[in-house]
Amino acid sequence: MKVGILGATGYTGIELVRILSKHPNAKISYLSSKHFESQLISEVYPGLQGICDLILEGDDFKKAVATCDIIFSTLPHELTFEIAQMVMDAGKRLIDLGSAFRFDDFNVFKKWYGSNDDIEYDKFNKVYGLTELNREKIKNAQIVGNPGCYPTSVILALAPVLKNRVVSDKNIIIDSKSGVSGAGHEPKFSNLYSECNENTKPYNVAKHRHIPEIGQELSKIMQEEVKIVFTPHLVPMTRGILSTIYCNLGSDITLNEVYDLYQEFYKNDYFIKILNPGKYPSTKSVVGSNYCQIGFEIDEHTNTLIIMSVIDNLVKGASGQAVQNMNLMFGLPENKGLDIIRIFP
Amino acid sequence: MKVGILGATGYTGIELVRILSKHPNAKISYLSSKHFESQLISEVYPGLQGICDLILEGDDFKKAVATCDIIFSTLPHELTFEIAQMVMDAGKRLIDLGSAFRFDDFNVFKKWYGSNDDIEYDKFNKVYGLTELNREKIKNAQIVGNPGCYPTSVILALAPVLKNRVVSDKNIIIDSKSGVSGAGHEPKFSNLYSECNENTKPYNVAKHRHIPEIGQELSKIMQEEVKIVFTPHLVPMTRGILSTIYCNLGSDITLNEVYDLYQEFYKNDYFIKILNPGKYPSTKSVVGSNYCQIGFEIDEHTNTLIIMSVIDNLVKGASGQAVQNMNLMFGLPENKGLDIIRIFP
Amino acid sequence: MKVGILGATGYTGIELVRILSKHPNAKISYLSSKHFESQLISEVYPGLQGICDLILEGDDFKKAVATCDIIFSTLPHELTFEIAQMVMDAGKRLIDLGSAFRFDDFNVFKKWYGSNDDIEYDKFNKVYGLTELNREKIKNAQIVGNPGCYPTSVILALAPVLKNRVVSDKNIIIDSKSGVSGAGHEPKFSNLYSECNENTKPYNVAKHRHIPEIGQELSKIMQEEVKIVFTPHLVPMTRGILSTIYCNLGSDITLNEVYDLYQEFYKNDYFIKILNPGKYPSTKSVVGSNYCQIGFEIDEHTNTLIIMSVIDNLVKGASGQAVQNMNLMFGLPENKGLDIIRIFP
Amino acid sequence: MKVGILGATGYTGIELVRILSKHPNAKISYLSSKHFESQLISEVYPGLQGICDLILEGDDFKKAVATCDIIFSTLPHELTFEIAQMVMDAGKRLIDLGSAFRFDDFNVFKKWYGSNDDIEYDKFNKVYGLTELNREKIKNAQIVGNPGCYPTSVILALAPVLKNRVVSDKNIIIDSKSGVSGAGHEPKFSNLYSECNENTKPYNVAKHRHIPEIGQELSKIMQEEVKIVFTPHLVPMTRGILSTIYCNLGSDITLNEVYDLYQEFYKNDYFIKILNPGKYPSTKSVVGSNYCQIGFEIDEHTNTLIIMSVIDNLVKGASGQAVQNMNLMFGLPENKGLDIIRIFP
Repeated sequence: MKVGILGATGYTGIELVRILSKHPNAKISYLSSKHFESQLISEVYPGLQGICDLILEGDDFKKAVATCDIIFSTLPHELTFEIAQMVMDAGKRLIDLGSAFRFDDFNVFKKWYGSNDDIEYDKFNKVYGLTELNREKIKNAQIVGNPGCYPTSVILALAPVLKNRVVSDKNIIIDSKSGVSGAGHEPKFSNLYSECNENTKPYNVAKHRHIPEIGQELSKIMQEEVKIVFTPHLVPMTRGILSTIYCNLGSDITLNEVYDLYQEFYKNDYFIKILNPGKYPSTKSVVGSNYCQIGFEIDEHTNTLIIMSVIDNLVKGASGQAVQNMNLMFGLPENKGLDIIRIFP
Repeated sequence: MKVGILGATGYTGIELVRILSKHPNAKISYLSSKHFESQLISEVYPGLQGICDLILEGDDFKKAVATCDIIFSTLPHELTFEIAQMVMDAGKRLIDLGSAFRFDDFNVFKKWYGSNDDIEYDKFNKVYGLTELNREKIKNAQIVGNPGCYPTSVILALAPVLKNRVVSDKNIIIDSKSGVSGAGHEPKFSNLYSECNENTKPYNVAKHRHIPEIGQELSKIMQEEVKIVFTPHLVPMTRGILSTIYCNLGSDITLNEVYDLYQEFYKNDYFIKILNPGKYPSTKSVVGSNYCQIGFEIDEHTNTLIIMSVIDNLVKGASGQAVQNMNLMFGLPENKGLDIIRIFP
Repeated sequence: MKVGILGATGYTGIELVRILSKHPNAKISYLSSKHFESQLISEVYPGLQGICDLILEGDDFKKAVATCDIIFSTLPHELTFEIAQMVMDAGKRLIDLGSAFRFDDFNVFKKWYGSNDDIEYDKFNKVYGLTELNREKIKNAQIVGNPGCYPTSVILALAPVLKNRVVSDKNIIIDSKSGVSGAGHEPKFSNLYSECNENTKPYNVAKHRHIPEIGQELSKIMQEEVKIVFTPHLVPMTRGILSTIYCNLGSDITLNEVYDLYQEFYKNDYFIKILNPGKYPSTKSVVGSNYCQIGFEIDEHTNTLIIMSVIDNLVKGASGQAVQNMNLMFGLPENKGLDIIRIFP
Repeated sequence: MKVGILGATGYTGIELVRILSKHPNAKISYLSSKHFESQLISEVYPGLQGICDLILEGDDFKKAVATCDIIFSTLPHELTFEIAQMVMDAGKRLIDLGSAFRFDDFNVFKKWYGSNDDIEYDKFNKVYGLTELNREKIKNAQIVGNPGCYPTSVILALAPVLKNRVVSDKNIIIDSKSGVSGAGHEPKFSNLYSECNENTKPYNVAKHRHIPEIGQELSKIMQEEVKIVFTPHLVPMTRGILSTIYCNLGSDITLNEVYDLYQEFYKNDYFIKILNPGKYPSTKSVVGSNYCQIGFEIDEHTNTLIIMSVIDNLVKGASGQAVQNMNLMFGLPENKGLDIIRIFP
């Protein structure tokens, strides 16, 4: 199948290139970049020399839609809505790595993203693309709203205990630590090496745009409103997210029972790995791969369940999951072209 | 005054050397090291050449006590109890950077540290050395149990709101991120560069030895038992601790009122900096210095107060606070020899 | 084919596991580890859970040889000589990632490695495993001495200009920068995170054991004795080697002509990428992959050719090249199982 | 004395603030910043809160000159020439951390910096500010051209052997490795964390603007034209420069004799530390301090002297040396306010 990547030189864009270049069923046919238009992608990223030497095109989205079977977009939502319409009209497929199609209620989107878009949101045949939870719907979706990196790490970690109602829906505390690539490929002061290196810092505390996305999905899983506190942090590494999540245990349950519950919940999920009781995940165990590892601990003095999950923010948290969804949409095995082992050390 | 440092080649030891070498009232007179005995400290750490060229001595603690006015110990508790007795007998002073003298109840110490020591703990004239909270007692103490790095960052952050009872004592969630120097100068697999670099990982979840220390001090501040959940993490940087703390607000209070409360609480404390509402601390703002910076946010949906504090784990979290205490014990201005600005970038 | 890895938990060992786990023609059948004997490899390295869950065996080399078609050894030379004999006797194949089989003259090996081994070195049917230069011989070798990481980066960079005699054989200056994983998976002070992080340092200046290996191979290429100066450095990153090499240009030659010469020399080599004139390589362009990138510049004021090459020290500099050699030895396409794109960012 | 810093928010600017804030004889009176005009410097850099809370002013250089005894400029040369004229007219002093006043021959400056300035360069009473070599001239200079970071590390390393003519003036190879802060506080792609982290790369090979500066000063020392090859590299750390320098030994000389020669040459220089034969410098031994450490090795096979020097690029390589020069200009001890020990680890 022919794929196009709109916004191919950002970090999620080139990660798509890395994965799709070796995908046995995909052929990259169209790449666009605003910053680097008309250069070879292998000039911008010399590591791609001889692997992907396409010319980066500009904004000719019509051509992209016309020549590709599936489009991956990493562009701002204004543009994505345009592209989505073209894709719908042409009967093609779209996976949006931005935030445009992650929401059930357009007003929530508009409020948190400061959008003035005036569109008929519900006309789009779209699905929230957290593969493990929405697998069947994704298969037939025309448009997939690929989840945010933090939401992926959080929702996968919480789904089993919320679904089984072993924790309270009140005051779920989520403390996430992300590598700096999560802040994007943007030349601004706060992304500079010398500012980020040897530095750990919280940001957008209780205000991050992933909050409504996490809340929406958790509430659907539990079938009542789930309230979360979410604090993202930047830590000095390039890739990886660790989410440490604190919940009140509503019932008497042992660590082994929690383990069994997760094992059962994810028994058919290739990319989810549950760690044995007493083991905790580290980001380095998944970097470069599409895996999510989940571990837990119980603090008995306070009856708190501590869930820890790790993903590579650019793979399972973005481009890897997007390809996982593409595989589903085209009837391929979910791990096709994604069966990559983490880099260690 | 003449100072001795027992265990001078660990990270807190050489940090004491860094600070005390330039302290106008101190003269380093005795350094010991088990690993590097009889070498020059400036051979082990060439950056000290011409600055401190003393020979590292072995275990002659008697000589140390005899020739020094004050001893800093970074040794294991078994040895520290021995040294403490010598110090008491000789009428000298001791600041212990280990855990031996941080507890009110010896049984708590024995339980958490797996100690079989059979000593008369209460005979020691000792004080918990969190300077800002115990200033008066420290002045006259013979033995100071210098606080742990995590407890320093946590207790300073929580004292104002616990003292003023604006938060609940239930389920205080503490999520701390530490640089790797906190794991000590020990050649083991988990401390290797290639394991720690590009890696974020939780450890000792709900089991870390700093839990009883934090609990003890917070409970004294609030005058009732405070229950905490504590998860430490290692992040890939050398120095710095960020503690992100989540508490239930017990009362209606605005962000500005919280700010005022902290400003008032720490108005006479040279090394505590309260950040304006809306600003959050980053570890890099204090690295190399004895400052603690504190910021906060309120999550209104859940009525949660999020407190964030940063220190340099080797300075305010260890050797800097030790020198701050030494200054107090010898009637010097608290910031003498400690008035060092952070390194940035 | 069945493969065994002796010393599977060091960095080159687990890199072999990473690559071979997904190799379509290989089946990992035997893993050994002295440190972690009888644990699952996926317990030691949780990132391998569900990917490779073999038990780490001890020193039963006989069993390894008996059950495998090819053995990869990362063990010390004393042990490797033993294993090599077993392999010879059993008519199997061996790829040694240590230094035991890299030399033509056993006395050179003994001198530089302080070895007292008393063996008949020449009886071994062995080849120096720099794939691009010794391809034909490797196909039929029973034992391959896999090159060192620095020599790989240096010899590939220099072969074209030495072979074509465009540079002088005198005073070739080689200044190499390596990531810390090159120092191995050994718990010693100099490998600790806090010592290596934010630090660049030369080591073994003019004394490194890779000097005779480089000298031997370059001299064979040029058919006269080549004299080199070699300074290795550790830089604070996990993976990657950059070698910056300075040679006196013996003849009038332009940058474009140098480029053409390299292109011609490596025209059939899948993993060697020559950069356009004016472009210089960076280690990040190859990390995680088996590629070597080479760029150059001419300093006209001094008539100096500056050659810069980058590899991933654990892939092309060790385990990747070993698998490349295995492919050759078993009649497979050279890039089978190795067609991995670098991780970026 | 009252000091002004023009361009106070770049990395050399805030390093001046760090040092001068605690200088016993200096009072920071004027700070300017184009980007952050009219903000408090402690808002831009929260680590300065309570330490330096001045408002950042704009381009009112007249006011700066009028109110200060000495001006430090980190601005582009066009502006610096303007300011220099004002300083001359007002009888004040200027230390320029840019490149405007580092050259003897204005044409060399114009050629390498692409400048079209049409000024009377020789009217300025200026000195090249490498303190150890030009101490007497600096005392009375009105304008000091503070050296570049690479030149400082290189010239200090080579001066003793060039002065004493123990090495050849031909083909001196200089391979320098710098932390990323050397690339400045500028938001561009190549300075982003995710591009620089885990990456080592050469840049401006044989073309860097520090080449003529190094050549000029070395030639003066040797009193004949010295030809150098210079390759700068960026390594993933914030601070520090290591220069590894290769020279042909012109005469028979032992390592111990080289050591004695350096010791003698720098016997009165507080900030220069010569390492014992067999010891090599590492950047971490000087980070945060104004020291320069120098070590060496002889490669006997090629008769090559390898000199290695380390400095902190922002201290001895920029702001520290600037303050050292200021001390000289005002009759103060050279190490006043600069007696800072490196941060380790």
